[in-house]
Amino acid sequence: MKVLVIHGPSLDLLGTREPEIYGDETLDEVNKRIEEEARSLGLETVIHQTGREGEFVELLAASVGDVDAAILNPAAYSHTSRAIAEAIRAVPYPVVEVHLSNIHAREEWRRTSLTAEASVGVIAGLGARGYLLALKWVREAKD
Amino acid sequence: MKVLVIHGPSLDLLGTREPEIYGDETLDEVNKRIEEEARSLGLETVIHQTGREGEFVELLAASVGDVDAAILNPAAYSHTSRAIAEAIRAVPYPVVEVHLSNIHAREEWRRTSLTAEASVGVIAGLGARGYLLALKWVREAKD
Amino acid sequence: MKVLVIHGPSLDLLGTREPEIYGDETLDEVNKRIEEEARSLGLETVIHQTGREGEFVELLAASVGDVDAAILNPAAYSHTSRAIAEAIRAVPYPVVEVHLSNIHAREEWRRTSLTAEASVGVIAGLGARGYLLALKWVREAKD
Amino acid sequence: MKVLVIHGPSLDLLGTREPEIYGDETLDEVNKRIEEEARSLGLETVIHQTGREGEFVELLAASVGDVDAAILNPAAYSHTSRAIAEAIRAVPYPVVEVHLSNIHAREEWRRTSLTAEASVGVIAGLGARGYLLALKWVREAKD
Amino acid sequence: MKVLVIHGPSLDLLGTREPEIYGDETLDEVNKRIEEEARSLGLETVIHQTGREGEFVELLAASVGDVDAAILNPAAYSHTSRAIAEAIRAVPYPVVEVHLSNIHAREEWRRTSLTAEASVGVIAGLGARGYLLALKWVREAKD
Amino acid sequence: MKVLVIHGPSLDLLGTREPEIYGDETLDEVNKRIEEEARSLGLETVIHQTGREGEFVELLAASVGDVDAAILNPAAYSHTSRAIAEAIRAVPYPVVEVHLSNIHAREEWRRTSLTAEASVGVIAGLGARGYLLALKWVREAKD
Amino acid sequence: MKVLVIHGPSLDLLGTREPEIYGDETLDEVNKRIEEEARSLGLETVIHQTGREGEFVELLAASVGDVDAAILNPAAYSHTSRAIAEAIRAVPYPVVEVHLSNIHAREEWRRTSLTAEASVGVIAGLGARGYLLALKWVREAKD
Amino acid sequence: MKVLVIHGPSLDLLGTREPEIYGDETLDEVNKRIEEEARSLGLETVIHQTGREGEFVELLAASVGDVDAAILNPAAYSHTSRAIAEAIRAVPYPVVEVHLSNIHAREEWRRTSLTAEASVGVIAGLGARGYLLALKWVREAKD
Amino acid sequence: MKVLVIHGPSLDLLGTREPEIYGDETLDEVNKRIEEEARSLGLETVIHQTGREGEFVELLAASVGDVDAAILNPAAYSHTSRAIAEAIRAVPYPVVEVHLSNIHAREEWRRTSLTAEASVGVIAGLGARGYLLALKWVREAKD
Amino acid sequence: MKVLVIHGPSLDLLGTREPEIYGDETLDEVNKRIEEEARSLGLETVIHQTGREGEFVELLAASVGDVDAAILNPAAYSHTSRAIAEAIRAVPYPVVEVHLSNIHAREEWRRTSLTAEASVGVIAGLGARGYLLALKWVREAKD
Amino acid sequence: MKVLVIHGPSLDLLGTREPEIYGDETLDEVNKRIEEEARSLGLETVIHQTGREGEFVELLAASVGDVDAAILNPAAYSHTSRAIAEAIRAVPYPVVEVHLSNIHAREEWRRTSLTAEASVGVIAGLGARGYLLALKWVREAKD
Amino acid sequence: MKVLVIHGPSLDLLGTREPEIYGDETLDEVNKRIEEEARSLGLETVIHQTGREGEFVELLAASVGDVDAAILNPAAYSHTSRAIAEAIRAVPYPVVEVHLSNIHAREEWRRTSLTAEASVGVIAGLGARGYLLALKWVREAKD
Repeated sequence: MKVLVIHGPSLDLLGTREPEIYGDETLDEVNKRIEEEARSLGLETVIHQTGREGEFVELLAASVGDVDAAILNPAAYSHTSRAIAEAIRAVPYPVVEVHLSNIHAREEWRRTSLTAEASVGVIAGLGARGYLLALKWVREAKD
Repeated sequence: MKVLVIHGPSLDLLGTREPEIYGDETLDEVNKRIEEEARSLGLETVIHQTGREGEFVELLAASVGDVDAAILNPAAYSHTSRAIAEAIRAVPYPVVEVHLSNIHAREEWRRTSLTAEASVGVIAGLGARGYLLALKWVREAKD
Repeated sequence: MKVLVIHGPSLDLLGTREPEIYGDETLDEVNKRIEEEARSLGLETVIHQTGREGEFVELLAASVGDVDAAILNPAAYSHTSRAIAEAIRAVPYPVVEVHLSNIHAREEWRRTSLTAEASVGVIAGLGARGYLLALKWVREAKD
Repeated sequence: MKVLVIHGPSLDLLGTREPEIYGDETLDEVNKRIEEEARSLGLETVIHQTGREGEFVELLAASVGDVDAAILNPAAYSHTSRAIAEAIRAVPYPVVEVHLSNIHAREEWRRTSLTAEASVGVIAGLGARGYLLALKWVREAKD
Repeated sequence: MKVLVIHGPSLDLLGTREPEIYGDETLDEVNKRIEEEARSLGLETVIHQTGREGEFVELLAASVGDVDAAILNPAAYSHTSRAIAEAIRAVPYPVVEVHLSNIHAREEWRRTSLTAEASVGVIAGLGARGYLLALKWVREAKD
Repeated sequence: MKVLVIHGPSLDLLGTREPEIYGDETLDEVNKRIEEEARSLGLETVIHQTGREGEFVELLAASVGDVDAAILNPAAYSHTSRAIAEAIRAVPYPVVEVHLSNIHAREEWRRTSLTAEASVGVIAGLGARGYLLALKWVREAKD
Repeated sequence: MKVLVIHGPSLDLLGTREPEIYGDETLDEVNKRIEEEARSLGLETVIHQTGREGEFVELLAASVGDVDAAILNPAAYSHTSRAIAEAIRAVPYPVVEVHLSNIHAREEWRRTSLTAEASVGVIAGLGARGYLLALKWVREAKD
Repeated sequence: MKVLVIHGPSLDLLGTREPEIYGDETLDEVNKRIEEEARSLGLETVIHQTGREGEFVELLAASVGDVDAAILNPAAYSHTSRAIAEAIRAVPYPVVEVHLSNIHAREEWRRTSLTAEASVGVIAGLGARGYLLALKWVREAKD
Repeated sequence: MKVLVIHGPSLDLLGTREPEIYGDETLDEVNKRIEEEARSLGLETVIHQTGREGEFVELLAASVGDVDAAILNPAAYSHTSRAIAEAIRAVPYPVVEVHLSNIHAREEWRRTSLTAEASVGVIAGLGARGYLLALKWVREAKD
Repeated sequence: MKVLVIHGPSLDLLGTREPEIYGDETLDEVNKRIEEEARSLGLETVIHQTGREGEFVELLAASVGDVDAAILNPAAYSHTSRAIAEAIRAVPYPVVEVHLSNIHAREEWRRTSLTAEASVGVIAGLGARGYLLALKWVREAKD
Repeated sequence: MKVLVIHGPSLDLLGTREPEIYGDETLDEVNKRIEEEARSLGLETVIHQTGREGEFVELLAASVGDVDAAILNPAAYSHTSRAIAEAIRAVPYPVVEVHLSNIHAREEWRRTSLTAEASVGVIAGLGARGYLLALKWVREAKD
Repeated sequence: MKVLVIHGPSLDLLGTREPEIYGDETLDEVNKRIEEEARSLGLETVIHQTGREGEFVELLAASVGDVDAAILNPAAYSHTSRAIAEAIRAVPYPVVEVHLSNIHAREEWRRTSLTAEASVGVIAGLGARGYLLALKWVREAKD
């Protein structure tokens, strides 16, 4: 079973960017933990990071027939991108959205996630562990 | 380590209530799974179900000094109760909010969770498994 | 056939409370008329008055399997309580909402009834006679 | 005692129009029931159906001195017509508004009734029986 | 020089309708004053009263080439009728709007006049004298 | 196959009314082009122009069983008439909405078409040719 | 009988300021016409121009016992000044508001006049003639 | 003379809860100061603390005929509870609202107090001394 | 210890202005009570009344170094003046806002006080006694 | 004469994506029909599909001097992209917007098309035939 | 060439007022830098500071014919004063608005500048250097 | 010292695109002036133009460690891109936003700049000179 993971804009700066909000772990370290957890759950992962809305759209479409589920952190695009939301609706596999910080407890505009609207569910505010919990859910939900 | 779990209004009707949204598992069955998972993680649980907003407020305050974390599903109160949100802010232990259904993908008013605003994080849309993932997070976060 | 009737907050003060809006009949007098009308229609009634939102929620759930319909006047809770609305959605029997005064002709906030949204229908502005008309409807609808 | 009844736009298509919402009874059948109920209550009725907002306005004014009460179903005009609302305010006899479907439980725009704001009260969601209950109220209120 | 005057919905009830707001002069008396003032200013008048939005639209179009100005009191339609506003925009002669009561000092919805938006100007709150002032303006503006 | 065409308020003034927006072709000329195009497509047309909202409602209902489709330009009523929208929903034949000007590129209030909400589709901003394209669509859609 | 007239901010630039909106007559010329009209109506006038909101407030209070009515053109302050509105409410004599341009036909913010809300009535869009019509109204209203 | 005092949800945690906002005095200490001040003013007090909206409603009704005034701090319920506001309107004695913190200077939602709308007046931002000032007002107002 | 007191626009008309809202005591009488209370508390007062927003701004700045606290009743300016609010933020001494009437229980626009947002606290609805309570608070807070 | 055609995000999944809304024709089949229609009208076409907002912007600019008109279906970007709208405003050739589904009859957010605001006109809800009608309009408009 | 510079309310407290936002330079020091820069650019300056909205209005009008440009920092009035905005529109010389802090990055209400709407341009967030850059622009723009 | 300059979507069409708003200088000419000014200030520049939101995000991240400041004109993306705003927040160097036209004086949606919210400051409405003033500020701010 294969899972597509996409990290959105500015997540490549993880560890240095506003560490009081996002923590001081780098994206490489997070990805290593994702891969380890996946392995232990018997899952294969394909991990991308992109600053481009359109790349989310195209990766989702291109993965049809190849992956069994996706875990997305669209970051800022969660709140503005109808295009990624439509792309999630257009693919046949389930998508779980993950946010490092608690989007309900920050600025007003972060509370509305357009992409979550099209996803199966959301895990927010639980840090990088959110990705691991999402993997666990995928593993069990697909059984 | 002890965890307070509170299920909110109408969750006692789980299994018969709008099963296409909330599934056909009863609250007893969900609670059994919560207790099993807790045990396997080495956690103790105290589980309540209430239809009363004020009982959330009072249980939270009364558990200060007794529990190490709480997992709340305030159901409809999530969207209207400033009082529960204030109670969460007033206690010293971390609170994780769980929703069975994806609150971002239903009616407009379900998207805003006032109680999530005061919590550490939220897991929504992943069914009863959301409680188990929350337990897992508590286990690791407190280590 | 049995009908649950619940009068909401401050209706215990009926007769003395803002009589130019709510009339000078007391709740006891209204209940007597309800019981008489019910008897004449061959209906049994269970009547409650409560100032507590959660009591509405719990009475509705507790009456599953016991009553055939409910007539609610949630008063102020009509306009704020998602929890009562969810409780109405969660029970299998029909609920009719009654308001003594015309909620469309008073302050802005009274126009939106969250609980009416979950009910079968609403009778408003026709005074205590609204309860009697609701009973009549229940009688005929259940035939 | 004489009662004016006006059915608004598209109610002439009753029975074929969206029957899952409005039922499969035709307007003629509804009117027959209204007339029977009126007779049994000792009331005289004048019944109109019109697709025109202005006709509501003019019928209301023209009936001053002729009728003792009116029962209106302004249908779509309920939500947009300040003119009918003003006409109701301008006549000396009481007006009851009836809606076949529950206007609180459908699209957002149906929740606000401008004409109900000017009426004595509203019965909504109780189907064609709503007209009969309104007649009953008129009978008793005028005694 | 000829002036079209149209009184809108419910103005036929003037004198009996909410006299504390609209005064106790009847429409006939107001029209007599309008005709006298017009005569003294050397103006010819054509006066209509209608409860129908569409009649405003059609009278305005039908008067092209016949009248030199119009004085409208669209009453409740002022606040809802884009159609009358468009009809005013579509005719080549100037239109002055008159309101008996001060639309700025009543309910919120009365403050926005869609038809005033398309007119040359507005006189509001000065009672029936508003029509006479409007005639005076027409007389001078056309010189 | 027969098509109902209704032009709304102020369209009788086409050619002289704000020609920089609506062009200098008269309604008669537009109708001639509609009839020619219909003939060449093997369609019969019934064409009305009205300034009255209620006439739209009544023409739509009266045409049930007589026409196979309708092409409406409700003009200003598009933006305010819930009654016409309901009438469109109440008839069994498809309705296409046409606007001469681009309603998305003018005042804010023109962007929301209540009647388009109930129609199959909309053609806007392509001038009188919009009617011809609509006829073409009707021809092909009904094949 | 004495009438207070206050011209608000930037009206001292009349004649040069945006003449396509406000005309090319200077404030001196307008005042001369006001004085002539007043004389011919047997009224005395006191005329002020000020760019200061507080001066409106203080002039209104200081004129209690001295004038019989006031005609105000608060210009931009009409749309923002609760203080002038309160001052109008606080004085015992009637106030008429005049606007040179049609405030309903310009930017959105000009449509709401807070000061008109406290006045007897408003004349807008009829140019400097608006002042003269207001004087005429004062003359007749005080008879 | 007797005064009812009710402290709302989470005020039992005073002293430990967000002390930078609410101070480090406990509720017991505050109550002691209230009782002392009351005694010195010759007033009797009945003091409650509750986390339940419905308890406010029921305490207010139950105190009719027993107390002469009430001082409420509905805390979070101030901003959401129409039920408490209605209960205040339903009792014959005056109610003063007290807030420890300045509700105008915090989050947007804290600025609107539904319960203050039904009270005689409000004291906010002056800390626990607000209760004492309220007692002083009651003393003098009842003289 | 010295306290600056500023009464805002139209408060000079106190006693004659809308006495059912503001009472029939004149400003002189109120000021006398303020001075007496101050004296009895050992406070010195400087009292101003102004109809000018800018005078509030300048008095506040000019009093830096001279007074220890200020009590402001900005009246209508409370709801519109960002400038007074900024001036309050800019001075080092505490400011208490007083309103004679209950701003929460009147028109919508009175509920938002921009100046209260910058103040320490607010006393509203307790009449002229509000000033005296504010003085008492100043006395104790500065101890 | 050459026409640029751009299909927006997720349109590459046409035929499998939500076929009850978008039909079961693939994008290749739609493109074949576009090319046939273009040929029969004597038009040349350049067809793109992209999931990227920026590619719309760059293709539009790059086609200046090369194409005579464009037909765009920006899909989800219609509702969020000010950048594509600005790009349409920045090019000298006319742009027609096409939507397969009726954007007025779906979710609220689909009703506002920012890109339509900058286009000549819009065809929506007429399926893939919308592109062919747009081509026909281009052919005639450019003659 | 002469430039009018006006500093708005509370800027006289610069240096002591919220220095973390506005810096610790006093207004005198800022003015000295403005005069030096002006001199070096060959410009003459007239500098005012005022806490009064009306003084802005009157200074702008009084400077017609005397100055060639103006640089305004209306501070809090930027966000509320339609009167200053109208005064800017009424003068023939260009006005540049300067803000010390970044108005886009603070409270919501600071983002809308009504006076900037009437100005040529705005420099915000660049501290006191903003005035110098504005002078530089005036110098070059007037060449 | 090195400065990153990014011109956003459609700025490549500068000189031909709406020249009455954006002027007739081409982007090449603007860039030449930027480079000259930079040289004269002793600054090095890296200049990009892109129509892609994601390219802004990626260029900003890629320049960390390479540049000392950035000057961005995100054009249309200013008003919609949370992603670019987040990217600005994520980099350690200061960013100044420049707009050729006055964003406060055009359509409503242009007034809110999401990217300005994350920047140090903004220069708007001063044409291409805005870039030069920004360079000057960078030069001085970094000293």
